[in-house]
Amino acid sequence: MSREQINVGVIGFGTVGVGAVQLLETNADWIAQRVGSRVVVKRVMDVDWSRPRAYPVRPEQQATAVQDILDDPEIDIVIEAVGGVTHAKDAVVGALTRRKSVVTPNKELIAKHGAELLNLAAEAKVDLMFEGAVGGGIPIIRPLKESLAGDRILRLVGIVNGTTNFILTAMSQEGRDFADVLKDAQAHGYAEADPTADVEGFDAMYKIAILSSIAYGGHIDVQTIYHEGITKITAADIEYAHQLGFEIKLLAIGARAGQALDLRVHPAFVPMEHPLASVHGVFNAIFVQGDPVGDLMFYGRGAGAGPTGSAVVGDVIDCARNINHGAAGRVPCRCYQTLPIQPISEVVTGYYIRTCVQDRPGVVGKMATIFGDHGVSLTSVFQPQQAEEETGAAEVVWITHRVQEAKLQAALKEIATLDVVEAIASVIRVEG
Amino acid sequence: MSREQINVGVIGFGTVGVGAVQLLETNADWIAQRVGSRVVVKRVMDVDWSRPRAYPVRPEQQATAVQDILDDPEIDIVIEAVGGVTHAKDAVVGALTRRKSVVTPNKELIAKHGAELLNLAAEAKVDLMFEGAVGGGIPIIRPLKESLAGDRILRLVGIVNGTTNFILTAMSQEGRDFADVLKDAQAHGYAEADPTADVEGFDAMYKIAILSSIAYGGHIDVQTIYHEGITKITAADIEYAHQLGFEIKLLAIGARAGQALDLRVHPAFVPMEHPLASVHGVFNAIFVQGDPVGDLMFYGRGAGAGPTGSAVVGDVIDCARNINHGAAGRVPCRCYQTLPIQPISEVVTGYYIRTCVQDRPGVVGKMATIFGDHGVSLTSVFQPQQAEEETGAAEVVWITHRVQEAKLQAALKEIATLDVVEAIASVIRVEG
Repeated sequence: MSREQINVGVIGFGTVGVGAVQLLETNADWIAQRVGSRVVVKRVMDVDWSRPRAYPVRPEQQATAVQDILDDPEIDIVIEAVGGVTHAKDAVVGALTRRKSVVTPNKELIAKHGAELLNLAAEAKVDLMFEGAVGGGIPIIRPLKESLAGDRILRLVGIVNGTTNFILTAMSQEGRDFADVLKDAQAHGYAEADPTADVEGFDAMYKIAILSSIAYGGHIDVQTIYHEGITKITAADIEYAHQLGFEIKLLAIGARAGQALDLRVHPAFVPMEHPLASVHGVFNAIFVQGDPVGDLMFYGRGAGAGPTGSAVVGDVIDCARNINHGAAGRVPCRCYQTLPIQPISEVVTGYYIRTCVQDRPGVVGKMATIFGDHGVSLTSVFQPQQAEEETGAAEVVWITHRVQEAKLQAALKEIATLDVVEAIASVIRVEG
Repeated sequence: MSREQINVGVIGFGTVGVGAVQLLETNADWIAQRVGSRVVVKRVMDVDWSRPRAYPVRPEQQATAVQDILDDPEIDIVIEAVGGVTHAKDAVVGALTRRKSVVTPNKELIAKHGAELLNLAAEAKVDLMFEGAVGGGIPIIRPLKESLAGDRILRLVGIVNGTTNFILTAMSQEGRDFADVLKDAQAHGYAEADPTADVEGFDAMYKIAILSSIAYGGHIDVQTIYHEGITKITAADIEYAHQLGFEIKLLAIGARAGQALDLRVHPAFVPMEHPLASVHGVFNAIFVQGDPVGDLMFYGRGAGAGPTGSAVVGDVIDCARNINHGAAGRVPCRCYQTLPIQPISEVVTGYYIRTCVQDRPGVVGKMATIFGDHGVSLTSVFQPQQAEEETGAAEVVWITHRVQEAKLQAALKEIATLDVVEAIASVIRVEG
């Protein structure tokens, strides 16, 4: 019952487009065996064909208008590799309404418009797949949708942004400061000229929204997700983290919290013995806690032509198999309801706090009393160095037990008013 | 087009059967949403219903003969949870020939008879799924078959046996000897009364055969796989491993080696910085190198009612979705040809060698010369302790560069003939 040939159209021929086309053509025989049909890249659209690519396509494959792909009735599957939201969305809507299955690794598009697009796909009885949108080449979306479909997922914790993990790893291993490492990362192509989306946590926010939407079965309004970047992390914080047995990682968290979701992106202290603490450099990992499966972790390269190309082609093969079996939509979307997100003030977690104080008798006691008054209990307090002789200034580092964020903030607000407290220099959450 | 109800029959109600039935019934609403049909456990077969279970089934579900499941025309999917090979195979063949899809976590059955059973399933146009056969609750088979279907897999390295990893972890962390830890593991239920299948590497051998068969697309004759257990690993070896920056793990390896496969199970030195070195206790992990995806790792609990139940239910949901879409067999088996396996003598890897020698001038030089004569080059040689005063005996520890096993064995054979060499106490491969 398999078709002889299934045709793919590609919109956008940058890193991801090139990676996907190269893989589809290089492993064409292998893929044909696995699908039961030849999967052929019929046309590739880009606005600029003068630029040289790592993998060229033949002149007859080249197109310059999105309509060349959308209006070609022989094209069964469209790969959206334009990026951004506006044009990408038009292209995806155009393909779905013309009953073409769509594969996209575009996390911003899926995080913002996934529910609408999945509904369009369901109406058109075609597939919309986006494995490459989270974790690059790491299989995580298909395992959540299929392998773990019977489990109740309790918690997702991901290192899902390679740029920030590269920066934090270099800071951790070389004791360097953020700004310095960022420059290096930009020079090596690991960070964009405008690094905002990565270092401020937007990219990770889109990704955890997508994963949580699948794991918890509902739509998530990305505008409401708390996110905090890594720009304020200092070499001193990392040094203290090490002394206390932690690494600092940018975590994207999506967990059940009663009837709501605890959804947030921020840097966190991670215990050295936790599997996420050993995820270094540009690698990504997603830690999953499910009932009854227990703890799982998925680890791999989170970006690049090869890994993202692998994810896109895996999805193309899945779409092609569904076309051959008339089984599009066999894994349905369940994102009908919008899932409520807990306000950050209600989040319960541990905290690392670095304070700069005047080193006088009774200072630590005064501060500890205020913490206690607000219901914040402490697991450790330490003063790493002697006070500076000239100024009498010293740092005091605090680690709290798990406590509600609102209580901690109230305590910090009162502590900041003390004469002897010069600054609350850092507040970083501690995740187990 | 979805059916209202899809019926499941379960053969065998031990740990795995109980785990699967409990999950299917507890999360029935959730699963119905995801499948589009209610998935109902209609009958469960076991020979002994007097024994109490962690999760009971209703009397009308209880059956005592396999035929009660096989001959029930309303049962669509059969879970084989008998274990072993003989009865399990009869049950699976019986179900497939009656056009019921089958889910089994039985690694020995699949490793030995998978090709035959998958052919039967294809003829009957039903599915045979076995995610639980490797890595317990870790999604690894579906990712290899689907997400990575476009990749060329280059190498699989797995810690796929929880019992031996529990034992090696305890030996590593507590400096204890094998026999001592094994007794503890048996007392805690982490090792069987007859631990042979685990500690001699048979279990890991079945699992790497299954993974390699999928990754490299062919049938594997398990009889021809080299396997070596952990019974000879001593506290001294682990101590030296730590000094040299390694952990000792029982690895199951399946890699491309020219036109053949390099397939083997044995303990190995793993560098501390490798992700597999941090996989402790009963956890499993499978490290995958693919082109173009790069390095991946899948980590989780390798056994138990919960994790294996999760895998089995994930497969049941997949089968049910295929039934609703008439899409059974959408991911075809490609195990038509038998894949050639490289003899162990041709394997190329690094080695750790612990020798007991008479501590006389020139001894190390003599041995090093023999290594050199056989083309074995050394990365390090060290004598951890002074010679014993009474006997003049000392240990010398060697680490080689990568070299063909045959050359190493020839060198060791010659070294063993030296008067000053009392014993070649340990030879353990080093994997990167």
